[in-house]
Amino acid sequence: MDVVKVGLKGREYSIHIGSGCLDQTGELLTKLGLSSKALVVTDENVNGRYADKVMRSLEGAGFQPICAVLPPGENTKTLDSAGKLFTIAIRGGLDRRSPIIALGGGVIGDLTGFVAASYLRGVPFVQIPTTLLAQVDSSVGGKVAVNHPLGKNLIGAFYHPKAVVVDTCTLETLPEREMRAGLAEVVKYGVITDAAFFGFLADNYHAILVKHPDILKLIIRRSCEIKAGIVERDECESSLRMILNFGHTIGHAIEASTSYSRYIHGEAVSVGMYGAAVLSARLGLCNNDEAGAIRDLLTRFGLPVIANGCTPESLHEFLVRDKKSVGGRINWVLTHGIGKAAICNQVPDDVIRQVLEYITQQQAQHI
Amino acid sequence: MDVVKVGLKGREYSIHIGSGCLDQTGELLTKLGLSSKALVVTDENVNGRYADKVMRSLEGAGFQPICAVLPPGENTKTLDSAGKLFTIAIRGGLDRRSPIIALGGGVIGDLTGFVAASYLRGVPFVQIPTTLLAQVDSSVGGKVAVNHPLGKNLIGAFYHPKAVVVDTCTLETLPEREMRAGLAEVVKYGVITDAAFFGFLADNYHAILVKHPDILKLIIRRSCEIKAGIVERDECESSLRMILNFGHTIGHAIEASTSYSRYIHGEAVSVGMYGAAVLSARLGLCNNDEAGAIRDLLTRFGLPVIANGCTPESLHEFLVRDKKSVGGRINWVLTHGIGKAAICNQVPDDVIRQVLEYITQQQAQHI
Repeated sequence: MDVVKVGLKGREYSIHIGSGCLDQTGELLTKLGLSSKALVVTDENVNGRYADKVMRSLEGAGFQPICAVLPPGENTKTLDSAGKLFTIAIRGGLDRRSPIIALGGGVIGDLTGFVAASYLRGVPFVQIPTTLLAQVDSSVGGKVAVNHPLGKNLIGAFYHPKAVVVDTCTLETLPEREMRAGLAEVVKYGVITDAAFFGFLADNYHAILVKHPDILKLIIRRSCEIKAGIVERDECESSLRMILNFGHTIGHAIEASTSYSRYIHGEAVSVGMYGAAVLSARLGLCNNDEAGAIRDLLTRFGLPVIANGCTPESLHEFLVRDKKSVGGRINWVLTHGIGKAAICNQVPDDVIRQVLEYITQQQAQHI
Repeated sequence: MDVVKVGLKGREYSIHIGSGCLDQTGELLTKLGLSSKALVVTDENVNGRYADKVMRSLEGAGFQPICAVLPPGENTKTLDSAGKLFTIAIRGGLDRRSPIIALGGGVIGDLTGFVAASYLRGVPFVQIPTTLLAQVDSSVGGKVAVNHPLGKNLIGAFYHPKAVVVDTCTLETLPEREMRAGLAEVVKYGVITDAAFFGFLADNYHAILVKHPDILKLIIRRSCEIKAGIVERDECESSLRMILNFGHTIGHAIEASTSYSRYIHGEAVSVGMYGAAVLSARLGLCNNDEAGAIRDLLTRFGLPVIANGCTPESLHEFLVRDKKSVGGRINWVLTHGIGKAAICNQVPDDVIRQVLEYITQQQAQHI
């Protein structure tokens, strides 16, 4: 098993990455000084595949776990679901040292993390992400949240897990579309901080797509290392950490303007990354070849780089409303060449509009 | 205006204490780098008296405040109310640097703090406590929460304000019963850390009860200093901070066993402090005179030291269920003489039962 240590002062934790390591969940948790009562939160899809294994491992290590199974999908990520989980935790007698364990993708991880952050003002949180996206993104960094009818992730906290267990075997049953969406975030890490990793992805895209176990472990490990390194230096997203939003500004607008139905998160981020790269090239921050290399790698992974079904006008409207805009200004993350990224909130509006036209194919034009 | 600085690393803030300083709220906030949109949360009682003053002060300093008015009382402190406030914040266009301001007593402070902690994963929180209890207790320390139908304060966070504004004038309209209840927490600070302050309270009890402004400012200031000093050393209640729960173990059991209707919080804590003092004396940790001095000061402030309407059995049952018990053990805070307190989770059950009989007057007996 590989281990990535996340070195937050006073709240260090380890990400354990291996093939078939769900069985070791209980054992890994015994070292953390937890109470025996535990709550595992999962969804109906994951429950049938992996919950038994986790429950048995916990029981074998002396825990008394209960399991809450929720409907799959984004609609579960609400304050209402959190309320139901609080009730289950209270009735189950969970105390301040009882672990609350998320077994599933980003929806389960975000919701469960918010519950763990808020139950008794915070109890130990453990993540067992079962999608590539959750493994490389939402399980590192402590961002937990639920949605509000008026917007996604508007209610939440920064709350770090005590441990993360990543079993690459869970990717074997992951639908191909979700696998590709997870790769969008992996590409992002290369673009924003590590040109060599970007090159490795380009060289090994086939092995990745056929889910070669060692390659998967390697790219998950490197992604977690990069994200952990950034989060360690800026826990609460005051500055540096914002580069993790590369591709997310336009990506969120695409998701919102299509009512979160046409594109899944990674796909929208893929278009958003290409949009941000084109924007960077237009502003002279990177050259056209670099934007082209980003487009090519995303395309190899079967990811979209054009937002069909969106209009530049609706994207622009959602951009301005984004919760990351402060005082009406959009904080763009732009690439200064592959491996380098920086924030810019001074992008002229006409350039933004041109790029939105370009990525929605409203304007036939080369970069 | 007096200022108490709370020195939490990276999250320092000031408590401004004065007579008539509500007018200066806007001015005090201009130094904190906030967005102009602001949300003031208050209840129907406080709204009529003080909200106008605060809103005008904020507007005068360039803020664009909106005001949410909730029904008064504990029933407002729910996840549901939090949900409504999230909606108001979103519709009002509050961004990550917009302040959310609690104007009221502990219920408003706790609820609003939870909303500020969770909205967009945390926005600037400002406290304007208008009851003595909130001024000396809930506005320092970062404990924010809402109730769950199965128990009080079960959902919350540790989240510190960016500023606290205490206007002693607000105590002029505070009902006497609530004033006395606040004094219970003031007495607590003397008992757990500061014998001289305890003596000062005993010497000046009359001036306190007639609300002499300078004396009020002094006791609020000293209470905040003591609490801040403890919270600075143990932010998340892992050890030292637990001494702030002196009187609260039995106090919570009294509140819960009488369905939160017969005693208000400070009254229950008053009986709980006397109970903890008697328990300490029985265990030989302090002498009977010291327990007697605590009883006498509480009585002078018109506070109860006997829990009429409770049975030892029901109190015992709630004690064991308390959320502060870990692994089934009760963490008692006991006095080792006035000015000193420590945690003990090894109190023999028969001694606990004797003390519960004594403070419910089920057993006529001298300490």
